Amino acid sequence: MNSQNPPASGGGDSRPTLDVVALGNALVDVLASAEDATLGALDLVKGTMVIVDHQRAESIYAAMGPTTEASGGSAANTAAGVAALGGRVAFLGRVADDQLGRAFTHDIRTVGVAFDPTPAPVGDSSGTGHCLVLVTDDAERTMATHLGVASDFGPVDLHAGHLASAQVVYLEGYLWEQPSAKAAMRQAIDMAHAGDAAVALTVSDPFCVEHHRDEFLQLVNEELEMLFANEEEIMSLFGTDTFDEAVEAVADTGVLAVLTRGAAGSVVVAASGPVVVPAAPVDRVVDTTGAGDLFAAGFLYGITNGLSPEESARLGSVCAAEVISHVGARPLADLRELAVAAGLFS
Amino acid sequence: MNSQNPPASGGGDSRPTLDVVALGNALVDVLASAEDATLGALDLVKGTMVIVDHQRAESIYAAMGPTTEASGGSAANTAAGVAALGGRVAFLGRVADDQLGRAFTHDIRTVGVAFDPTPAPVGDSSGTGHCLVLVTDDAERTMATHLGVASDFGPVDLHAGHLASAQVVYLEGYLWEQPSAKAAMRQAIDMAHAGDAAVALTVSDPFCVEHHRDEFLQLVNEELEMLFANEEEIMSLFGTDTFDEAVEAVADTGVLAVLTRGAAGSVVVAASGPVVVPAAPVDRVVDTTGAGDLFAAGFLYGITNGLSPEESARLGSVCAAEVISHVGARPLADLRELAVAAGLFS
Repeated sequence: MNSQNPPASGGGDSRPTLDVVALGNALVDVLASAEDATLGALDLVKGTMVIVDHQRAESIYAAMGPTTEASGGSAANTAAGVAALGGRVAFLGRVADDQLGRAFTHDIRTVGVAFDPTPAPVGDSSGTGHCLVLVTDDAERTMATHLGVASDFGPVDLHAGHLASAQVVYLEGYLWEQPSAKAAMRQAIDMAHAGDAAVALTVSDPFCVEHHRDEFLQLVNEELEMLFANEEEIMSLFGTDTFDEAVEAVADTGVLAVLTRGAAGSVVVAASGPVVVPAAPVDRVVDTTGAGDLFAAGFLYGITNGLSPEESARLGSVCAAEVISHVGARPLADLRELAVAAGLFS
Repeated sequence: MNSQNPPASGGGDSRPTLDVVALGNALVDVLASAEDATLGALDLVKGTMVIVDHQRAESIYAAMGPTTEASGGSAANTAAGVAALGGRVAFLGRVADDQLGRAFTHDIRTVGVAFDPTPAPVGDSSGTGHCLVLVTDDAERTMATHLGVASDFGPVDLHAGHLASAQVVYLEGYLWEQPSAKAAMRQAIDMAHAGDAAVALTVSDPFCVEHHRDEFLQLVNEELEMLFANEEEIMSLFGTDTFDEAVEAVADTGVLAVLTRGAAGSVVVAASGPVVVPAAPVDRVVDTTGAGDLFAAGFLYGITNGLSPEESARLGSVCAAEVISHVGARPLADLRELAVAAGLFS
């Protein structure tokens, strides 16, 4: 299934009408600044995401300072970024009929992402998922996610029309945690390939790689056209001691791999070999929430709109730099303008 | 009832245990940046607040870009500011048992404000109030408030214990819009004076002055120890053509008046005559939401903690400068530290 020239382009009249369809957890971020000591007291590991039940979410929330709420969710942030660049994009995820669900729906639609969620079953009171984000002084974010109705994401939430119209179907690794979501992902992959779309996966988090290494490797070897991971994740996935060994390992699979390294930039592993792309400059890093998500947004928009993999990674860097310069995981500035300023579009 | 030396201090053993009890609409702000043209299309007047019904709130929300949610409400912001300075403060307001209500409750309690709301009646589905805030490029905010359950604020929401323990009872002029809230305000004034507390009113908005001029004048002449207004509001209240005439008029009433003039600073009208206090410097004005609320917070904390009216106004300026330097109506920086840096506390 791998191709070094994604996205697979439909022939003749069937040009895809969507650049990207993204599947992920629909979450509202609940953000507060926090001290390192608070993370320790709450048994949270800085820089990681942990799934928590309602009770644990409540006790973490109670220990947080005043919060602001803003739509989040990894793949949803990516979808919002693609739309901000002018891309045609849809999001698939599950929200409840509550205040957080309405806010999530408003926020993603208003930036131009198609979002037509399957209504939650009557009587489901688990609520729209939310992610408690503790931002420390070093701009690092530590996350505790209560999935709520997002934990029921399943095949019923797939939108055949969107999946059949996509150039790239982008899957969030976090979804591999739930059996019904995993079944939906498998089905989405089949629908994508039947419709000539490329399939991309972000492995999302080191803990996802730990939990699902064998399945992720099977996907890389047999199903995916594109893979997104950071340095720690790709080394864990291939069980290597060094980043360079991981680059070699992923190059052997033939997948187009986009590997981010924070301030050290990124490496794109394409058929022609690995290319190092520097990070875009940032005046002051305020909150790294959404950095990887927006990098993926820039890359996906670029690759589906005529840019080379290297140029696409440069666009990813520009988008990531914007989102880490302020609180929150979605762009505030005009990404299209920033891309033009970086010489990527005229 | 007026005194030029508020707060009225309890004698002997009965030192008040709260510096301030603030009464107001419990609202969650829903903030988005907006173009001037959008305000026009929505029939909103820049810089003002308008009360809207559910349907109109929905259509304004639909026209807004992606939003962030953060607790707001004018007097609630003031209470949060007093707490941030280290003051002892309680807030009285009405929330529903919903996600916005829980967020409001969390946010105000976590900064140290006592908030023990009367539970909303079973079956009330109008929801916690929210304020749609459209922030234009010039940092001005334009607001449309859907009061929800806040419109039912009434005598049942008064907390006799808090009111009996206060040095200052601070009333939000916005509450004068609703008959039941007005009845509660009148009762709170009586309880405050019975308990030896000073009563302060912010007139809140030019439209409140228009609607309630006679009642506000009666309050100023007969009930209040302190009055907060901006330039436009005080001129409207006394029907004067110039600010100086308004200063003379309010001086004649004997009330301690705190008159804000934006970047031009403020004028405190005390028994010894009017004193001009410059605004504190701000690097960049980002969002003026909460400027008046935080000015009042600084002033109230100062006046209840041994500062002179002039020093209290300087503290108000410091707090206002902080809140307009970022998005949102509550302080993010350590106000106490800023006050010390300004030489107001050691």
